[in-house]
Amino acid sequence: MNITSKQIAELCGVTRGTVDRALNNRPGINPETRVKILRVAEELGYRPHFLAQSLVKGHTKTLGIVLFDIHNQIFSQLFHAFEAEARKRGYIVYLVLSNRDKDLELEYINNLLDRRVDGIALLPTNFNKKFETLLTRSRTPIVTFGNRLSGPFPYVWIDDKQAIRDSVAFLSSQGYRHLIYLSPPLMRKGKENIYVPEQRYLGFIEACDEISDMRHNVIAQKNYLAELEQLIEKTNSKSAILCSSDVYALEVLKWLKSRKIRVPEQIGLMGFDNIHVLKYINPSLTTVDYNVNEIGTKLADILINQINNDEVPSETLIAHHVLQGESVTLDRDL
Amino acid sequence: MNITSKQIAELCGVTRGTVDRALNNRPGINPETRVKILRVAEELGYRPHFLAQSLVKGHTKTLGIVLFDIHNQIFSQLFHAFEAEARKRGYIVYLVLSNRDKDLELEYINNLLDRRVDGIALLPTNFNKKFETLLTRSRTPIVTFGNRLSGPFPYVWIDDKQAIRDSVAFLSSQGYRHLIYLSPPLMRKGKENIYVPEQRYLGFIEACDEISDMRHNVIAQKNYLAELEQLIEKTNSKSAILCSSDVYALEVLKWLKSRKIRVPEQIGLMGFDNIHVLKYINPSLTTVDYNVNEIGTKLADILINQINNDEVPSETLIAHHVLQGESVTLDRDL
Repeated sequence: MNITSKQIAELCGVTRGTVDRALNNRPGINPETRVKILRVAEELGYRPHFLAQSLVKGHTKTLGIVLFDIHNQIFSQLFHAFEAEARKRGYIVYLVLSNRDKDLELEYINNLLDRRVDGIALLPTNFNKKFETLLTRSRTPIVTFGNRLSGPFPYVWIDDKQAIRDSVAFLSSQGYRHLIYLSPPLMRKGKENIYVPEQRYLGFIEACDEISDMRHNVIAQKNYLAELEQLIEKTNSKSAILCSSDVYALEVLKWLKSRKIRVPEQIGLMGFDNIHVLKYINPSLTTVDYNVNEIGTKLADILINQINNDEVPSETLIAHHVLQGESVTLDRDL
Repeated sequence: MNITSKQIAELCGVTRGTVDRALNNRPGINPETRVKILRVAEELGYRPHFLAQSLVKGHTKTLGIVLFDIHNQIFSQLFHAFEAEARKRGYIVYLVLSNRDKDLELEYINNLLDRRVDGIALLPTNFNKKFETLLTRSRTPIVTFGNRLSGPFPYVWIDDKQAIRDSVAFLSSQGYRHLIYLSPPLMRKGKENIYVPEQRYLGFIEACDEISDMRHNVIAQKNYLAELEQLIEKTNSKSAILCSSDVYALEVLKWLKSRKIRVPEQIGLMGFDNIHVLKYINPSLTTVDYNVNEIGTKLADILINQINNDEVPSETLIAHHVLQGESVTLDRDL
C-alpha cells in the first residue's frame, strides 16, 4: 500500500489538483505550498503510480527474456549483456527459465503478456503454428535467438552450421581422421524446437562427407559415455571428440581423466561456446569462440528498436572462430 | 495494443456486460452467445487485463530479486531455486544485477517499487539509515540474504563466521601451521555493506588467535597475487591458502599452476561455496559446502509468506560443512 496523492492533499490541507500541480511541476500554485507538498511527498516516500501511468501510456518499460536455464554460463553471460543494455535504455527485465519445457514456456509467455511487457526476447522450445500465432496475436515485439521460428521474428545468433563445419575443417587440417560428434538427443525433432542442435549436426555430417578419408560417428543420446567408450576402444586413427557445447566437453574431459585417457596425446577434444570457466580447465580446451555479450546486447537493442517502431534487421549473425587450446594436437604425426 | 472486451462486444453485437459475463463464467447469458463470445475471444487472443486487475486487487504477482551478478555460480544456482519456488506459488520474477554499485541498486529498487512488485529479495550493497527507511516506507515485503541490514528484515543465509572458524579448525587439525586468508577488499567498510566478507574475516582472525602456534596472514586487496607470492616464498611451515570464495580459489589455483607450485604437495588450498563447476577442477578443491538451493527456496517462501501476512522467522541459517577434496593433505607429516 503506497502513499497516494489524495493522502498528501489531506495532510497538506490542499486539493488533489494542487498536489498534482506540485508533483508534476505545473504552474498555478503558490511556491511555498509547492515546497511544502514536495517535502511531505518525499518524507512519505511518495512515488507516482507507475502502473496507473502504464495503463494510460500503454507501456510498462519492462522486457521479458526466456532462457532454458542459467546453469550454462553461456546464458548467464548473455543475460548480463542483455540486462545492461536494457537498463541503459530505461527498461527492467523479467528473467524466466523454461528448462526446455514447452508447457512451462507457454505459461511463462502468457504471464509476461499479462504483465504487459513491452517486448520479449525468446529462446524457443516450442515451434508450431499455434505457438507462433499466439506470439503474433499478442502484438508484442519479439526477438528470437538460438532456435529459430518460422514467422517474421527478428533473430540474433551465430551461424551454427558453419561453426561446426569450421571445427571439422580445423580438426581435419591437424591430421585427425576419425571424428566423434557429441550432440544432444535429436529424436526430439518434431516434438520440440531443436534448430540449434540440428544445424550443428548437419554441419558435422556435411563437412565430414566432403572429406573422403574421414571416419565419423555421431552420438546423440543421453547416456553417451558407454557408446563413447566403445568407439574409442575400437579406433586406430588419430581421433578427436567434437562436442556441441563446452558443457559436454567438460563432462567428457572429466570422464577421460577418470579412465586415464590422456588429452590430447591419446585423443583430441573440442568444445563449443568458450564459456568463462574454461580458463580454469587443464588442458585448455580448443573450442568455438563468439562474442556472446554482443548477442545479448543486440537482442536488447533490436527489441527496444522494435518497441520504438524503428526498422530492425530480420537476421543478425555474430562472427565465430575456432579458438586453439591444448586439447587438440597441432602435430600431424602423433 | 491488446484486444479489449469492448471490441469483442462490438464484434459479437452484444453489450460489454454480456461479454464480461461470458468471460468470467457468470450466469444470465444465453449458452450459444457464451460459446460465440468465447470463440471470438480466443481467436483474437484476448486476455483479461492483468494490469488493470492489479490496480484493483493491489497485487501484481511479481517479485524482484537483487543480486550482485550471476557470473558467480553461487548466485545463478540461488536464482534457479528462487525462481522455481516463486513460479510454483504463482509469481514471476524480475532479476536485477547491482554489480555491487550502490546507486544502481537504489535505482533498481525504485524501479521495482514503481512496478509494484509484491516483494523483493535483496542482497544489499547499501546499508545506511536512509536506505533502510526507503525500504520500510515502501511498505513492500523484503527479505535479505548475504549482507545484513540493521532493520527488521527477515534474513536467510549461512553462519559465515562459524563456517570460516570451522575451515581454520579443519586445516589446523590436518597439521597446517601457516594460513593465508584471501578476502575481498575490506577497506570499503563504512562505504558499502560488507557484512559477509567482514564476518568471514572475523571468523578467521578469531579462530587463528585461539591456536597458539598458528601463523596467519590476511590478504584483502585487489592485486593479491604479488602479496601472495611474497608470503609463499618466505614460509617454512606447512601452509595453506584459505579463500573466502571458490572463485578466488580457482584464480589462485590457476596462478599456482602457472608457477609450477604443486597443490597440495607444496601448499594447501581451500575455497568456499562448492559451486557446480568444481566438479571439473583438478585437484578437486576442499571447500565449504552448503545447500544454496535451500537458501533460494527459503527466500521465495519467506517472501511470499510475508506477502500473505503470515508470520515469518527473522533469521534462517542454513547448515554448512567442510567438504574434503584433494587440495588439502590429510597427512600431518608432509
